[in-house]
Amino acid sequence: MLLLTRKAEFSAAHYYYVDAWTPEENLRLFGKCANRNGHGHNYTLEVTVAGEVDPVSGFVMDLKALKDTMEREVVQVYDHRHLNLEVPEFRTALPTTENIAVAIWRRLQGKIHGARLHRVRVYEMPDLFADYYGEP
Amino acid sequence: MLLLTRKAEFSAAHYYYVDAWTPEENLRLFGKCANRNGHGHNYTLEVTVAGEVDPVSGFVMDLKALKDTMEREVVQVYDHRHLNLEVPEFRTALPTTENIAVAIWRRLQGKIHGARLHRVRVYEMPDLFADYYGEP
Amino acid sequence: MLLLTRKAEFSAAHYYYVDAWTPEENLRLFGKCANRNGHGHNYTLEVTVAGEVDPVSGFVMDLKALKDTMEREVVQVYDHRHLNLEVPEFRTALPTTENIAVAIWRRLQGKIHGARLHRVRVYEMPDLFADYYGEP
Amino acid sequence: MLLLTRKAEFSAAHYYYVDAWTPEENLRLFGKCANRNGHGHNYTLEVTVAGEVDPVSGFVMDLKALKDTMEREVVQVYDHRHLNLEVPEFRTALPTTENIAVAIWRRLQGKIHGARLHRVRVYEMPDLFADYYGEP
Amino acid sequence: MLLLTRKAEFSAAHYYYVDAWTPEENLRLFGKCANRNGHGHNYTLEVTVAGEVDPVSGFVMDLKALKDTMEREVVQVYDHRHLNLEVPEFRTALPTTENIAVAIWRRLQGKIHGARLHRVRVYEMPDLFADYYGEP
Amino acid sequence: MLLLTRKAEFSAAHYYYVDAWTPEENLRLFGKCANRNGHGHNYTLEVTVAGEVDPVSGFVMDLKALKDTMEREVVQVYDHRHLNLEVPEFRTALPTTENIAVAIWRRLQGKIHGARLHRVRVYEMPDLFADYYGEP
Repeated sequence: MLLLTRKAEFSAAHYYYVDAWTPEENLRLFGKCANRNGHGHNYTLEVTVAGEVDPVSGFVMDLKALKDTMEREVVQVYDHRHLNLEVPEFRTALPTTENIAVAIWRRLQGKIHGARLHRVRVYEMPDLFADYYGEP
Repeated sequence: MLLLTRKAEFSAAHYYYVDAWTPEENLRLFGKCANRNGHGHNYTLEVTVAGEVDPVSGFVMDLKALKDTMEREVVQVYDHRHLNLEVPEFRTALPTTENIAVAIWRRLQGKIHGARLHRVRVYEMPDLFADYYGEP
Repeated sequence: MLLLTRKAEFSAAHYYYVDAWTPEENLRLFGKCANRNGHGHNYTLEVTVAGEVDPVSGFVMDLKALKDTMEREVVQVYDHRHLNLEVPEFRTALPTTENIAVAIWRRLQGKIHGARLHRVRVYEMPDLFADYYGEP
Repeated sequence: MLLLTRKAEFSAAHYYYVDAWTPEENLRLFGKCANRNGHGHNYTLEVTVAGEVDPVSGFVMDLKALKDTMEREVVQVYDHRHLNLEVPEFRTALPTTENIAVAIWRRLQGKIHGARLHRVRVYEMPDLFADYYGEP
Repeated sequence: MLLLTRKAEFSAAHYYYVDAWTPEENLRLFGKCANRNGHGHNYTLEVTVAGEVDPVSGFVMDLKALKDTMEREVVQVYDHRHLNLEVPEFRTALPTTENIAVAIWRRLQGKIHGARLHRVRVYEMPDLFADYYGEP
Repeated sequence: MLLLTRKAEFSAAHYYYVDAWTPEENLRLFGKCANRNGHGHNYTLEVTVAGEVDPVSGFVMDLKALKDTMEREVVQVYDHRHLNLEVPEFRTALPTTENIAVAIWRRLQGKIHGARLHRVRVYEMPDLFADYYGEP
C-alpha cells in the first residue's frame, strides 16, 4: 500500500463567534478571531489517498483526476469566499481549522475513484494545521 | 552601509471594488477579488533599514526597537482586521498589495530611529509581493 | 478523532560528548558536533494533540492554552540557552534531536487539558527531525 | 520507540510512456508527462527509521551512517540522471513518484543498521509526494 | 515607483555540453551536468515589473494580464520540455540558469503593458538563482 | 550584466556581550542574547556575484569554484563553531548578523575569480537577515 498526497491552496475570510455566548465569552476563547468584520488566511490543503500502485501506469490513481476533484469540490467553493457567509457547512459550524478539515473530508468522500481517501490536512497558517482521517 | 531586514506577519480580510465602476468592470479587472463579502490572506511584511554598523554593539539599530515599532505601528493595526472596513487608509484606497506596501511605509516613516527606512516588502501570498522604496 | 498541530521555535546551543569515551571515540561518532565550545541551531517544535471537535466552539482544545503551555513549559526553558549547560534534563543525557523530543514530551505530559498529547516533532535543521509518540 | 527522519535531494529527468498503449492513450493519462524528450524535477527524499534511543549516545542510529547510506544507495544512482534511460528499475516500471518511493525502499532495505526502515517519502514537487511503508 | 513581483513554476530537463570541447573539458567544467541523457529541475521564475500605482485601481498593472503573459510566453514553452532539444533559444546557447534568465527577459520584453519589465529571476534549485535586469 | 547567487548553510553558537558595559546595559540592548553560555542558529548564507555571461559556457563564473570557495573560506571556518570563542574576527567584534555579513565579505574578497563579488546576505533566522555590498 502506498499513500499519495497532493496540495492545493485557497484564500478565504472567516471569524469565530458563537451567538449563544456573551461578547466577553467569545473574546475570552477566540481573542482577535472574534472580530465579526472577519479576517483571513492563505489556506493550504493536503489530500492523501491510499491504494495499490498499478503495475502498468505506475499510478495509485489518475493524478489529474485527483487534482480536478480537489479543485471542483473544494477550491472553487472556498477560494476567495467568506467562509461564514458563503459556504453552507459553516452556517451551522464555525470555520475553525478542525471543522474545515472535517468539512473537506465530507466534500471529497465518495468523489475519489481508484483509491481510498486517507487523510485531509488543512494549514490555516504555516504554524497551525489539523489532520482528519474520517470516522473509524 | 549595511541593510538589515526583519519580517512580521499579519492575517487580514479584504476585497477589491471600485464604487464608481459597474459590477462588470469590477469583475473584469478584479475577478474573484471583487466579492464584497471579502476573502483574506496571511501577509508577510519585510522591513529593511539601512545604516552604519555601530563598532561597539555590532548593530545597525536596536533590533528589539525595530520589532516593537513594526508590531505597534503595523501588526496591531492590520492583524485580524478587515482592511477595507477597519483600517483608515483603505477607506479611500483599495488594499491592494501595492497600496499596503505604500501605507506601511507611511506608517513607519519617522518612527525608526538610528537607521534609515530603505524598503517595505509585502507578500500577499508566497507568489505575489510588492516592494516600495519611498518617494525619491 | 482529529489531530491539531502547532509549531513553535527556539534557538539554542549544544554539543555531543560522552565523558566515558576517548576523544577519538567521540569524534568518530559525533564528528563536528563533539566540539565542546558548542554550536547551535534554530529548532522547530511541532506539538500534536488528539481529541474530539467540540460541536459549539469547533475546537479540539483552546488554541491559546496550547500555545501558552508550549511557551511556558518549553520555549522559555530552552530558547537562547546552552542546552548542555543550562537545561536540567541534558546534564545526564545528550541533547540530541531524539532526546530533545523525548524531553519535550515529558515536559508537556499532564500539562495539556482537553485533548491528548499525540506526538512531539523536533527539527534540528530543515533536513533532520525526530518524532516521539510517548511510551506505549 | 522514536522515529528519525533525514532528507536528501536529487535532480533527475523522466517521462511517462507505456509502449503498449497508443499515443492518444498515453496523452490522456499522462498529459505533458508523456513527452518522450523528457522533463525533470528537483526531488526531495525523506527517509524515516524507527528504533530505541541509545541511553549513552542519545542516537537511534549513527546519523552519519544513515546519511552515507542514502547518498551511496540512492543519490549517487539517481542524481543528474535520466531515470528512464539510466536507472535499472525504471526500464520495466515507469518512474512515477509512487514507483520511485517503492524503488528507494528496496534499495535501502537491509542496508540500514541499528534501526528499522519505517517510511520512504518522495516529493516530486512541493505539492506532490508519495509515502511507502514497505510490504506488511 | 513601486515594484511588483509574481512567481511561476516550470519543470524541465536539460544538460550542459559544448560540442567544440573534448568530453574531458566538458566534464571538468560541467561535472554531472554534462550527462547528455539529461537531468531536470523544478524551476521557479520571478518576474518583477516597475510602475506607478494607479490611484483608482490600486494596481501597478493588471495582475491577471501579467500572470497570463508569463504563462503564455514562458511556462507553456518551457514546462515539461527538454530545454536543449525543444526550445529554440537553447539550440545555440546552453540552458544555464544565467541563459534562461536572459532568454525569459527577451521573451517577455515588449509583451508587458502598463508597467516596465524590471527584473527576471530564475531559481534552478532553492540554493541557486540568477537575476537579469536587461541591457543598460 | 547578470547576478548569480548561491546559498550555503552553517550552524554555530554565539552570544552578544560588551565587556565595557554593565550586565544591566548588556541585558537592556541584547536581551536573551546576552547569556554568555551562548545559544545558536542555523545560518543561511547567500553570495551574489556579478559578471558577463560567457557566450560558450553560458556561465558567469565556474559554479563549482564558487561553491568550493564559499565552503573553504566560510563554511569550514564557521560551521559547528562557537563564533565568539573560535573565529578570529569575532574576538574584537560581536558576531551580530551585521558583522557576520561584513566578515564574510572580507573573507571572500579577492578569492572569487571571473566575476565580481556583489552582495553577501546572511540569515540568522528566517525572519532576520543582513545584506552587505562592500565599501563604496
